[in-house]
Formats: sequence, structure tokens, C-alpha cells
Amino acid sequence: MKLRRRIFVVGGDLTPFIGKMHPDFIWKKHPDFGTRENPTLEQSLSAAINGALESTGVDAAQIEKGFIGNFAGELFSNQGHMGALAVRANAGLHGKPFSRVEGACASGGLAIVSCIDALLAGYDVVMAAGAEVQTSVSARDGAGYLARAAHWDEERSIDEFTFPAMFARRAKAYKAKYDVTDEDIAHVVAKAYANANKNPNAHMREVKVDLAHASKAGDTNPCFLANTELKDHLKVSDCSQVSDGGAAIILASEEGLKKLGKRPEDCVEILSYGQATGPLGQVADYTVLDTTALAAQEAYRDAGIGPDDVQVCEVHDCFAVTEVLMYEALGFAAPGKGTELAKQGETGIEGRIPVNTGGGLIAFGHPVGATGVKQVLEIFRQMKGLCGDYQIPNSPKIGLTANMGGDDRSSVCITLRNVE
Amino acid sequence: MKLRRRIFVVGGDLTPFIGKMHPDFIWKKHPDFGTRENPTLEQSLSAAINGALESTGVDAAQIEKGFIGNFAGELFSNQGHMGALAVRANAGLHGKPFSRVEGACASGGLAIVSCIDALLAGYDVVMAAGAEVQTSVSARDGAGYLARAAHWDEERSIDEFTFPAMFARRAKAYKAKYDVTDEDIAHVVAKAYANANKNPNAHMREVKVDLAHASKAGDTNPCFLANTELKDHLKVSDCSQVSDGGAAIILASEEGLKKLGKRPEDCVEILSYGQATGPLGQVADYTVLDTTALAAQEAYRDAGIGPDDVQVCEVHDCFAVTEVLMYEALGFAAPGKGTELAKQGETGIEGRIPVNTGGGLIAFGHPVGATGVKQVLEIFRQMKGLCGDYQIPNSPKIGLTANMGGDDRSSVCITLRNVE
Repeated sequence: MKLRRRIFVVGGDLTPFIGKMHPDFIWKKHPDFGTRENPTLEQSLSAAINGALESTGVDAAQIEKGFIGNFAGELFSNQGHMGALAVRANAGLHGKPFSRVEGACASGGLAIVSCIDALLAGYDVVMAAGAEVQTSVSARDGAGYLARAAHWDEERSIDEFTFPAMFARRAKAYKAKYDVTDEDIAHVVAKAYANANKNPNAHMREVKVDLAHASKAGDTNPCFLANTELKDHLKVSDCSQVSDGGAAIILASEEGLKKLGKRPEDCVEILSYGQATGPLGQVADYTVLDTTALAAQEAYRDAGIGPDDVQVCEVHDCFAVTEVLMYEALGFAAPGKGTELAKQGETGIEGRIPVNTGGGLIAFGHPVGATGVKQVLEIFRQMKGLCGDYQIPNSPKIGLTANMGGDDRSSVCITLRNVE
Repeated sequence: MKLRRRIFVVGGDLTPFIGKMHPDFIWKKHPDFGTRENPTLEQSLSAAINGALESTGVDAAQIEKGFIGNFAGELFSNQGHMGALAVRANAGLHGKPFSRVEGACASGGLAIVSCIDALLAGYDVVMAAGAEVQTSVSARDGAGYLARAAHWDEERSIDEFTFPAMFARRAKAYKAKYDVTDEDIAHVVAKAYANANKNPNAHMREVKVDLAHASKAGDTNPCFLANTELKDHLKVSDCSQVSDGGAAIILASEEGLKKLGKRPEDCVEILSYGQATGPLGQVADYTVLDTTALAAQEAYRDAGIGPDDVQVCEVHDCFAVTEVLMYEALGFAAPGKGTELAKQGETGIEGRIPVNTGGGLIAFGHPVGATGVKQVLEIFRQMKGLCGDYQIPNSPKIGLTANMGGDDRSSVCITLRNVE
């Protein structure tokens, strides 16, 4: 989408992303088990919304419209109608037009797209928030809930862990086509954990996973699929986390910035977005993310930039192979060459195109509806030098996010520019 | 929302709304039970989308963006990710940006709002579609699914039939405050069935309910709530239907009309929309739909019209008392006077302000996500003289829709004008 008005990210906030293995997450191995509870969906959403208002100094009454990214609240938390849930967060939001946007794991990115459309339509100050709670049920039940992002009747039966199996299928095809090894792919996993270990908000901030561990299946890193044709192609370390959490950002037009008393230099500008949707259950080539490629082409074209201009990037690494395929879909690497980027350190924090500097979905965590919102917030934070121990050394001018739903069926790419 | 560009409804289509008591619906009393199945969510959605394309002569490739209204596909059909489901309907849609919008029973209206924002943002031809299948489970289980539109933790326990109980609470409060009887309210029910009996697409097209039946509880019209304080205030005849079905419309800017080879006179113009969201679980006054009133005020103001200008209207009669409260929220009647409008025939097909000419949610049916889309399509069809036996005699110039989610927590009002 070519933007007829200038649009800015004013700032935002997020909750820590937590779940099993996180020190604050209450489960049977935690000393507080039975005496306190983890945050609910509403608590995560409210904390993100109010955090975004507080950290930017924006009054809730100044928010003119809002969009909530959430995938499966009805299932994990018995809660839908997320727009009306969200305005409970702050009395200043009561009565405001808030609604929910859903595109599986791209729900957060789609909430931002809806915000951009609203600003282009004529609103001046809007909010995108995303949240998900997934730890309310077992991993097995949760995998069934998440399988609603696939074509249930045609794809559910591939495995009880439907999405892990679908991406094992991609890993298998990719490794065969390009003679790539598990170790080649594991470089993105090692990078994700190394980055997350520097990120206080990351789900895996205290868990160490090195290249050796991520390269080989074994007792502490099992292949868990039942599907015998795919089982060998996915290990626990290849997977993103089952996380709870929320994120929210505030966006504004130039007129909106004036209303808020903000200067463009306080902000990051959105240059363009690309959005594409592929038909559920109809993937043409398992070695290509063609829907993401389509969205990226639109985003690049409408921003007047190309892959070489990108200096910081957030990609949707729902599984390790996905990050590799993302490098190729976004034009950072030629087909079959994606693993080399990570292997050579080019996508590390100090590399040429730092990707997923806070740990990505694999180690920062993946509270589904929050992820696309967090991606844009992370680019904002890197551009404004707010990333602490995982801050990239040179402040980047141009950034890109790629948020994906299902098996590359909904995709949103957003280009950003630091205003200095 | 004041519209910075002119926006037109080009046309659309819908499936018949079906469910128990409909002659084509397969259930245990149907002769085909066990030999054929009712349409799935995907089939309803696809039929509406392709019907809209065919009836308007628009090529799928000309659709630039789409929004799907659906409330609870994850629960009733194990299916989310509705944007990627929708593009399966037609190869010409593959790759197009489609996403789902959710605001409980206002999901369809919100999909249209997203279309309007997208057109104002710069798109020229867009589609809003809505669909729901609810007959896949028992009415009791379905009521639990629909309760995800309330605040689950705080409101679910009011009754196993949560929403019927919440509106029984409104009926009780309204009758007490204004000394109104069940018979006073039943006039809207008798009107709904009379209209639906003339409508070939209506769920209740063959079921007769007259004023006497709708006024009194009894063996054939039971009060079914368990909550003893509310039980007497809601009968089966007061309720909207558990329906399956889909609806879709195509909207365009002036530039879009040129691309499609359409003239404004072929279309109905959207003058404005109003959207408001109240906090879940926090209704200030059970006798007022304050969120809908807020949305209506915005819609009237931005269209430069008032209630007296409205010549045809679709309101969200999820229960009988809701239609009465809608009359008041929309400014058609003073507080406490809503029942008189229906009693005097003013909202009948031949009245001053015909409301729900096809039978409304009570008798046309209520496939949740489709309802808000169907409302706008019905205004289009009345304005263009396409309503057959239930066509209102004078072609109306100005119309209004009011689509509501939950207990008046999300509300969308749209004003329309016939272009002649």
C-alpha cells in the first residue's frame, strides 16, 4: 500500500513474554505453583495497552480507534469480542471504536495494517494491540487449537501437532532440494537463543541453546511428531515458544503528532505495507514462502526500497526453517542460500542485516496475536536505541517486518524509516 | 466517520439463511437426514462471495481487498484464519489481502467499516463478506460458544443460555420502568414473522407466529431459562434464530465504479458510519442501548441527517426487546415509547419507517457473522426494488443499519442513500 499521508509509530510497550522455562511462569515446577496464577488474556492485553499509553504519555481519550490482534481467545480463554474486552483497560477508551482482526499468527500485523488504513482514511491517532494466552491447556490441546489456522478438514490429520508437521514438511523438502543439513538450519536457532539471553522480556531469557544442541536430535531435544515421514525433520529446538503476552503501539498521522505534542524525530515512520493471502491448504512449493514474497514485493515497491536497504529486520520464525525461507522470500538470500546468511553471522546483532535481535518467535517467544505488533515495536526500539544489551551498534535507518499466518497463507510486510 | 471520498455499494448476494424449522435444513425430522449434509462454513462463505461477484458482474481479479465477518468459526467449525479460507472461493482472489474482523454479532458490520476505511485509504474496489455456521452443535453448546461475546469470567454464570438471560434482564428492566407488557413487545415478533413469510431467503419463511402466540408463554412457546429471576421475561418466540448462512457485498469508490464500468445510479451510496465500543460486562442502564446510541449519533452527524430522514432501516433484533430499544437508541421513538411504533404499524412494510422488512434476526435469521453484511445488502435491495413480495411500496431514498455485538458492547451504524 502506497501511503497518501505520512504515518508514524509514536511508541508502545509490551509485557514480558512468558511460558514454560521462564522463571516467572507458574507451572508445576515453580515454587509458587498453587498459590498464584499467570496473567490472563485480559491482564496481558490491558497491561500492553496501558503500558503503551504511559510510555508515550498519550492520554487514552486521544486514541480515536483501535484494533486488537488475537488468534484463538475463544478457545484458550473462552473469550472473544476482543474490542469490547480491550476498552475495559482504561476508562478513557470507553465508547471508542475498537475491534479485533484475525489472520492466525499474522493477526498482530493485520491489526497494524488496519491502523494504517484508518489513518489513511482520516483518523489521526490510533492503537494496535495484540495479545494471546496459550498456556491454559496442554501443548497437545493447544496444538489442536492452533490447527484452526490450517484448513481443518483437509490438513488437521497430518499430525496431532499439525503446524509443527507442516513446517517439518517444508524443512524436509528444503533440505532435499538444496542439500542443506540440520546443522546449517540450526544457526538461526543458536542466534535466537543468544539474542534472547540478552533480552529481559524474552521467554527464553535464561535458557541456553547452542549450535551443537540445536543441530542434533536426542533425549534433551527430541523429535516429537507422530507422522513417520516427517518426524525426523523437526526437533523441539526448531520450534517457536508457546507463550503468553501482549504488545501495543500507538500510530499517528502528522496532524496526530501535533495533537499529541510529538515531533517526527520522536517517531519511526511507516513507509509502506504489503499484505497478501494465499488459499488455505494449497501450498504450491514447500521450499518457498510465496505469499510472504508477494507481500514483500508490494512493501518494497511502495516504499521505493529494496532488500539491500534493510538494516534491521523482524521475521516470523515460527520454526527454524521458516527464518531461512524468510531470508529468501524477503530477497536477502538467493533460493537455497538462506542458511549461509546466519552461518556467516550476517543476520546476527553485529551483522549486516540483524534479524530478530530480541530472539524472534523461537526464543523471544510467540504469543500469537501479539507477535506482529511486537515486531514493529522492536524495530522502533532498535531505531531509537532502546534495546539495551541487544542493541545493534549502528542505529539503523531502514527496517522491515514480516509477519505470517498459518503455512504462509496470510502475510504482512511493513517498511519503516527512522526519523532523525 | 465523515467520508473524504464518495463510497458506493455496487451490490451483493446472500445464501438462504437456514436452520431448524427451515424446509431445506437437514435434521432428524428431515426425510434426507443421514443421506446429505447442510452447507459448511466454507460453502456458505464461498457461495456468498461468488454470488456477489456473479450478480454484480465483477471479476474476482478486480477485488483489491476483502474483509470477512465471522464470530466463532473456531468453535462451531474448528476453523479460524478466515481470510485465507475466503480466497479459496475463487482463483481470482488468490494472493489478495483478505482478513477477518470480529466483534461478536457486529462482525459483519465491522467488516463493512473496514471496507469503508480501506476505500478511504485509497483502495477502489473491495469486498465485505460474512458467514456463520451454528447448527453443528446443540443449542445448549452453541449458547456456550456464543457466550464468548460476553465477559466470560464475570457474565457466563448468569445462565447456561447466557445471552438470552442478558436480554431477559433488559426486558425485565424495561417492562418495569415503563409499564410495558409482553404483548406490547410481541408486536415486533409478529411483524418479523409476517415479513419473513414473504421472503424466500428467510429461515422462518414457512413458520407462522402471530401476535397472540408471541405474547404468551406456553407449551409451544416456553420460557427456557434456568435463572429464576429472569425466566419469566423471555420466551422462545422472543429469540433470533440459530441460523447458518453467508452474505457478501462489493463496495467501490468513484474511481472503482469507473474500473467496473458501473454508474452511481446502479448503486447505493454510503453517507457515513458510526462505530462505538462499550466495555464488556459494564452496562450502565439495562433499558438503554447506549453504545448503539453513540454510534447512531456519529452516523447521523457525519451524514448530515436525522432519524426523521430514515425511510428504511435494518436493526439488530437479537431479541424482541432489542428491536424496541433500537427504536429508541436510533431516535425513532422517545424512551419508553418504542413498542408503540410497532403496535401502530409504523415500522411495518407499509409504515412510515419500515424496519427489518425481510424478517430481521428473529425470522430472517441470524448467522452471526453474516448479519451486518446482510443488513446493508437488504437496504440496497429495498432501494433498488429487488425485494419481491416484501418490497416496500415507495422506493426509499435514505436508509440506516444498526448492527450490534454482545450486550450492546460493539455497535456499527451505517447511513445509505439511493443514487437515482
